[in-house]
Formats: sequence, structure tokens, C-alpha cells
Amino acid sequence: MLKFVSLLLALSFCQGLQHNNIDDYVEAEPVFEASKYGSLWPLPQKVQISEVSFKLTSSTAVFISCFYIYLFKSLHIIYICDPSDLSELQVWITSPDSECDGYPSVTSDESYELTVNQPVAVLKAPKVWGALHGRIYSIYFLSIINDFPRFQHRGILLDSSRHFLPIKVILANLETMAMNKFNVFHWHIVDDQSFPYLSRTFPQLSEQGAYHPYTHVYTPADVKMVIEFARLRGIRVIPEFDTPGHTQSWGKGQKDLLTPCYSGSKPSGSFGPVNPILNTTYDFMAQFFTEISTVFPDGYVHLGGDEVDFTCWKSNPDIQKFMEQQHFGDDYRKLESFYIQKLLDIVTSTKKGYLIWQEVFDNGVKLKPDTVVHVWIGGGSDKEMSSVTAAGYTTILSAPWYLDYISYGQDWQKYYKVEPLNFEGTDEQKKLVIGGEACLWGEYVDATNLTPRLWPRASAVAERLWSAKDVTDIGDAFNRLSLHRCRMVERGIPAEPLFSSYCPHEYKGV
Amino acid sequence: MLKFVSLLLALSFCQGLQHNNIDDYVEAEPVFEASKYGSLWPLPQKVQISEVSFKLTSSTAVFISCFYIYLFKSLHIIYICDPSDLSELQVWITSPDSECDGYPSVTSDESYELTVNQPVAVLKAPKVWGALHGRIYSIYFLSIINDFPRFQHRGILLDSSRHFLPIKVILANLETMAMNKFNVFHWHIVDDQSFPYLSRTFPQLSEQGAYHPYTHVYTPADVKMVIEFARLRGIRVIPEFDTPGHTQSWGKGQKDLLTPCYSGSKPSGSFGPVNPILNTTYDFMAQFFTEISTVFPDGYVHLGGDEVDFTCWKSNPDIQKFMEQQHFGDDYRKLESFYIQKLLDIVTSTKKGYLIWQEVFDNGVKLKPDTVVHVWIGGGSDKEMSSVTAAGYTTILSAPWYLDYISYGQDWQKYYKVEPLNFEGTDEQKKLVIGGEACLWGEYVDATNLTPRLWPRASAVAERLWSAKDVTDIGDAFNRLSLHRCRMVERGIPAEPLFSSYCPHEYKGV
Repeated sequence: MLKFVSLLLALSFCQGLQHNNIDDYVEAEPVFEASKYGSLWPLPQKVQISEVSFKLTSSTAVFISCFYIYLFKSLHIIYICDPSDLSELQVWITSPDSECDGYPSVTSDESYELTVNQPVAVLKAPKVWGALHGRIYSIYFLSIINDFPRFQHRGILLDSSRHFLPIKVILANLETMAMNKFNVFHWHIVDDQSFPYLSRTFPQLSEQGAYHPYTHVYTPADVKMVIEFARLRGIRVIPEFDTPGHTQSWGKGQKDLLTPCYSGSKPSGSFGPVNPILNTTYDFMAQFFTEISTVFPDGYVHLGGDEVDFTCWKSNPDIQKFMEQQHFGDDYRKLESFYIQKLLDIVTSTKKGYLIWQEVFDNGVKLKPDTVVHVWIGGGSDKEMSSVTAAGYTTILSAPWYLDYISYGQDWQKYYKVEPLNFEGTDEQKKLVIGGEACLWGEYVDATNLTPRLWPRASAVAERLWSAKDVTDIGDAFNRLSLHRCRMVERGIPAEPLFSSYCPHEYKGV
Repeated sequence: MLKFVSLLLALSFCQGLQHNNIDDYVEAEPVFEASKYGSLWPLPQKVQISEVSFKLTSSTAVFISCFYIYLFKSLHIIYICDPSDLSELQVWITSPDSECDGYPSVTSDESYELTVNQPVAVLKAPKVWGALHGRIYSIYFLSIINDFPRFQHRGILLDSSRHFLPIKVILANLETMAMNKFNVFHWHIVDDQSFPYLSRTFPQLSEQGAYHPYTHVYTPADVKMVIEFARLRGIRVIPEFDTPGHTQSWGKGQKDLLTPCYSGSKPSGSFGPVNPILNTTYDFMAQFFTEISTVFPDGYVHLGGDEVDFTCWKSNPDIQKFMEQQHFGDDYRKLESFYIQKLLDIVTSTKKGYLIWQEVFDNGVKLKPDTVVHVWIGGGSDKEMSSVTAAGYTTILSAPWYLDYISYGQDWQKYYKVEPLNFEGTDEQKKLVIGGEACLWGEYVDATNLTPRLWPRASAVAERLWSAKDVTDIGDAFNRLSLHRCRMVERGIPAEPLFSSYCPHEYKGV
């Protein structure tokens, strides 16, 4: 049942992706030393390197200057720039269904096996997702790599509301995510500041709520392009539509959706969270999330639910009356839960699973068993991981990986040293941790600075989530990451430097 | 004796520089409000805006979409994209010598007067330097601007040793410096990590000491281009060749220049600061700085002198012997001063003035009266400013403006709130403070992240050094700087955002 998918092709336009011989890097020795694992990042689960590998000369080395594979039906291409060194790279998808036409999911098999042996290299993977992961490296030496991820959910959160992110910035970062074996793009697409998502059902949301109704929106075609570009790299796109807080921009295009705040006995003119006491709110949400469920193919949607400020609800006499009727006393968390519960039912009816920020769990909302609880609050996140998993919920961790918090020096080390399972709990509980996400919130980030701020800092998170638990040698990580960062730079990504040094090919080929 | 330099020209390729009508910005009102000074940055010393200015419609407004002037002999060009609004911009250099063919200096007259009055705008300046400063703005309204800098020395330090900075990055930042009325490029060109300056006299310095002898060097032609590009924007180029510390890279190409360190009674194989006890050291320095004095036309050179580590000197028996002979006891600061004294004499003989980091003053080295002492140490910099000026030396301040130290949020405000004369001293002492510099050291900065890290954070320093002392309204500064930052972005400079918001034209025109 082996399925032979494709064969080599030497193409002249490989130059843009050209990768360097490891010899180039040897010049940089005074600053960083060679790891025995070269530039492998994230480190594969099992690597066997021939003892003689580092003694190979360029004439004897099994060497591919660059290669790049799309295995999908429409794109059966392998690029090999220097076929003289390695005459063939065979890619085998070993299970009957390659999943080439499907979308990646939380249960996708991402494993692969790469055997490099002159004159033929073989990349075997049960599914296309693993084959994609095997394509990342240039191969410098005789080796056998057996690889699979430690965690299934390895995400990057980008925020296109605080600042609009042009599509090409998003695509460039999806490409870079693939180079780092991330497999989830958590698209925090709307928030208080702006609503760039162009909804077919409610076009007035972006007409009124985007920074600009034409230049600062994501059209259905844009969204489709992002999703397909991500799929071709084994990346899921999980959109977040955060309610009932963080919704100021929604209110501009959707009358009566937000709660009118009161100043004494009169409306103040400002608005608070989504109004949870009106039927129209739930009608709107039902229609809106029905659209979302068809636009975004992933099995999950992120529903937010964080940081709900009760001040406005408290000021509103209609809300107060509703609180009395429902016997909520003055516990506004009950009102929040009332809203979320109805929202979850709506989303469930669209056949989607959901992720929610940790507050929703903390407030005791009844959740579906397959809910993913997203832990983000910095203080006490270990404790939170314990409680969430003790309650039997699947969880992902972001608390230690808020990459918008910048500081002087090599803060990637701090991210690298995190151990996601370092909390009190049984083995069963630990199994409920399916991964984590590096979050780059957008208050101070836009197209001008996003990419160098994200990379290679997020690469530290990538290795923590992919590689084995015992891969913790910070010196070896520095050496490999320095090379991996130069590889990103050579491929046109402005990944910032780790420390004083240089790359053989600097940014923009200068 | 008025000299009429040039007249308007409407050019179709103005698009790249095109600036927007203020109306575009009005859409952004929810996030930032309009200052009555629009987008003026740094704020001119005197601005008179007609009361009716904000009521003008586009049909009656005196409006130039963009203009851009080079007044130098070779480039008598003014671009006006929309000549229908303003029929003429006259530029008058009012003193007999325009200085068009000269270099800017610390005593250059940078004042200008700009009168916008339909259908003619007049930009008057005694020298070309002032006329350049008047060219920066798009003009939105009837106004009279009388302007001159508060401080004469307004610099940016870039470090091309920790990471090599491609010429095009340097040029782009000179352009941005001009937009912010900076007038000194302090080029920290070499340091421990690498020696990218290609010396005609000692080519082996970069051959051995650069990260790469061909791709990571500044050739004489490169240096000349930087200097001329800067001159055309009224910017001085002051190179720094920092000795006797910070010289590891010098030692690779110049045998016996550095002190051999000892481990017990034997040389350890590593090297310390410049060897101050050999005559060959001073022969080398004399030749080297003679070359520097001809390559760099500015009247000053920065000689460094900071952070000299005495450990290696202490370990070396020849140095110990010399210390005895000179009756220095075990005060190695005396040895450092001995070296610096001889170096200063050498540089003086090349007819250059010099700047030195504060330690040289602190160590009691005899300095020429026109020495500029550069204050950089964070703790106690007010006290240092007092002592330096009490001793009668001219000084510049950098201590509060180390922009390589990054942190979360709007740290530009911290830089903005600095008052350079806020130290104890007489009026005479205060007059000795000729300005300051924002320093972007290169350990964590290269072409991938330099520009968004520098701008608009350095713009805060620009206004502090240019505008009147009482220009301290942080809210008004935020409003103007938001617009000024968008102007930089529109002109292709990836200046990072101040906070959640957007520009009508985002980075790279997306």
C-alpha cells in the first residue's frame, strides 16, 4: 500500500531559497560553536549522525543546497538546487490515505522518517503532514532522523485588531511557522480596537468597526487564501471571536449588541460588554457563528471569554432587573456564565469544538468534555493547569509565552526553559496538556516590527513544544538556534539576532 | 546680498514621497486627537498658525502634498506634487555664503523661517542647513514658523561592530535622522567583535578583523558615500575608534598592538587592551589617525576610552616593570591616562578635536579645552554633568538615552521627559552642554530589527534636543508623534507604532 508521491526536480529559481554549506558557518566559530546536531531546529526526537559526517568534504558530502516540497495534488514539486550531490530524494506516504486533500487537525499524524544515504535520500511519513515536517532542513550529512512532535497543539497567536496586519505579513509568518514546525495559527482577528473581518452576513461590522472599511479588512478571499496557504504547510487556522468583553468594535456596526452604560439614571453614551439579556444578541450570535463555522474549516473556534469588566453591566438598570429575576444576587460572574453558556450551545450546534480563555473555566461555566481551556494568566499558571486538568479538561499553555512583553537581552532562554508539564498532577492529567501557544499581542506591534519581534524568540517555544522533554541544553540550543536564525534570514525573513555575530548571508542578501 | 536658490517643479515621481491631506488622519480620531500643531515634529521654536487654518477646505487651503528639497549645487530641485494649491515655494539663503559646498559643523547656523501664504510660500535661512530643516514638513495651513535648535549637537549612535550594518541600512537611517532634525551620526564603526573599516594604510585590520573580509567591510567608497549622503542632509559624521579597550578585533590584523595576557609566568594566549608600553603602538596610532583625519572631514573624532579592564595589564610582567619605572604604583588608571595622553597628542597633531567617553575625564587625563566629554553612565549622570561642566568642559549627554535597552510599552515617554540641563550648576555650566545622543548599541540589533527599534523612540530624543525647554506636554507630543510616525511609515521607513491604531498608508503601502 505504499504510495510513491513524487520525485526530484532541479529548478533554476531555487536561488531565493538557496541554503548554505555548513562550511560557511564555520567562519563564525569565535562567536558560536557547532552543535553536533548542526542547525537542526526544533531538534528531532531521534537523530543518528554518521561519525564521519563532519569530516566529509564538499566533493563527498551528501548535500542538498535547498529543497522544498509541496506534496499536495496541485503541487507535486520538489526543488533540489544541487542535484549533483544527491541524485534523488524519494518521498513516500506510507498510509493509504495521504490526507493530501484534507485539513490538518489536532489528531493529525505528523511523524516522519528521513534517511540520507548517497545517492538517495528517503523521506517516509504516514501522512502528508509528517512529510512536510521532513522537508524543512537542508541535509548536510549522512543521517537517519525519526521524528514526531511531543505536543499536538503548537501555536502562534497574532492579533490583527490592535493593528491591522497586511495579508503578506500573515503569509510570511505562516511560512516561518512551518520552518519552526508550528501547526496552529491562532488568529485573534477582532477585538475592541477594530473589526477587520469582513462578514458576508453582517458586512456593517467591518464597514463601521474596521480601522478603514476597504483598506483595513480581510475579505472572504483573503481569509480563504490564508487558510489554504496554512493548510499547504500543515497549519490549522483557528479564529478567535472574543466575547462578551473585548467587543467595542463590534458595537459600531451592530446596534443594541453592546450594553449601554449608565451614569446615574441616564445612559452615559458609552457601551460595555455584549448585552446578555436580549434575545436579539443570541439571534445575532447564532447567525454570526454559523457563518464562521463555514468560513473556517478547522474543527475548533476560539471563543475568548477573558477580562470581562462588570462596571457597565452593574450601572445598567435593565441588567440589574435581570439579575434579580435570575436570582444571580450581585454575582456578575453568574451573568457572564449565563451568556457564555448560551454562546457555547450556539457554537456546539454549528458542529464546532471550542477553545476558551481560562476565566470561563474559573467561573464554573458548564463546558463540553472536548473543550480546550487556554491558560494565559501569568501568576499561578501551574496551579491553574492542575485545576483545569483535574477537572478533566484538555488545556493549552500560553502564560509564560507572551512575546509582546519584551526585555533587553536573550529572553528566548526564558521561553526555552519553560516545562509545560511542570505542575502537580497525575499522569492522566499531564496527558490533557496538548500543547501551547506563543502570543504576540498587537498593542505595540504591526507590519513594521512584527517579524523580527516574533522570530527567533518564538522558535524557542517551537522547540519546547516539539522536541523531547530532556532537550534542555541551553548552550547547544544557542548554537543550533544561531544557525536556524541565519537560515530564516537567508530565506528572507528578518529574524532578529540572538547576540553579536553575523550570518554568511545577511538580511535582504546584503 | 540675497541669493535666490531655486523654484518649484512638479514631478510625476513624487508618488513615493507623497504625503496625505490632514483629513486622512481625522478618521483616526478615536485613538489619537489632533494637536493644534498638526504633525510638526520636532516642534519649532515659534509657530504662528492662522486662526482659520483648520476651517480651510481643500479648495481654499494652501496645501502641498509633498515637497522635498536638495539645495546643493548638484541638486537644485524642489518637488511639489500639487502645485495647484501653492503656486510657488521660494527658498532664500540670506547670507553671502550659503555653505552649500561645505560640511556642517558644531557651529553651523541651522535656523530658518517658513512663511506659508497663498499663493507663495517662502523659506528663508541664513545657511543651507536651516533651509534643509525647513523642507521637512508638508504644509497644511497658513503659518509662520521661526525655528532654530535648542542644542547644537543632536546625534544618533549606531554600532556596526557587534553586527555589520549594510550601507543601505545606514543611508535609510540618515534619511530618517534628517526627518527628525538630528545632525550628528556617531558611527561606532569598530569594537571588540569586528573591524569592518577598510583602512588604506592597514588593510589587514579588516582583512583579519572583520566578520568577513569582503562582504562585511566598509570600503573607502562606502565611507565617502555615507559622508556625502549625510552632508546633503546637514548631518555630521563622527567616527569612533575606541581604544585602548574594546579592541579585540584590532589585534587580529595588527601584531603586537594588544597586550599579551599572562597566566602565571606564561602568556595565556589571549590579549587585553592596547599595549601602552611599546613605541610601535604609538607609531601605529599616528599613522592610523592620520588616515582617519583625511577620510572623515568632520572637525571631531570620537576616541572612546571607556570600560578599560585592567586584569590583563596586571598579569603582564613587562607592564608591571613599566609601572614601576613610571612610579605609577598599582594605579592602573595612571597607565590608562598615560596611553590616552599620548593618543590625544597624536590626534591633536592631525588638527582634529575629539570626543571621549566620561571615564577619560574621570581619570584625570589632561584634555584640550575644546574636548567634548560624553556622559553615558546611567547612575549619577547629573552629578557627572555637574563635574564635567564645573571643570569647564563641553559635554554631551547619552546616559538616559540608551535605546538598546528595550522594555514593554511606551518607553519613548521616558526619553522625552529627560531634561538635559537638570543638574546643579551655574548658567555658564549649562551653556557647556551642547546636546546629546541617542545610542543604539548593536549586541541585539542588526539590519533585521534596527529601524523599527530606533524609530520613533529616537524621535522623542530629537524633540528634546531641538525644541524649547518648555515643550513638555506628553499628550500633545503623543498626538503629534503619532502623525509624525505615520509620515515616516508613508515614506517607507518601518517606524514601529506608539500604540494601538493605524496609519492611512501602512508600511510598504499595504
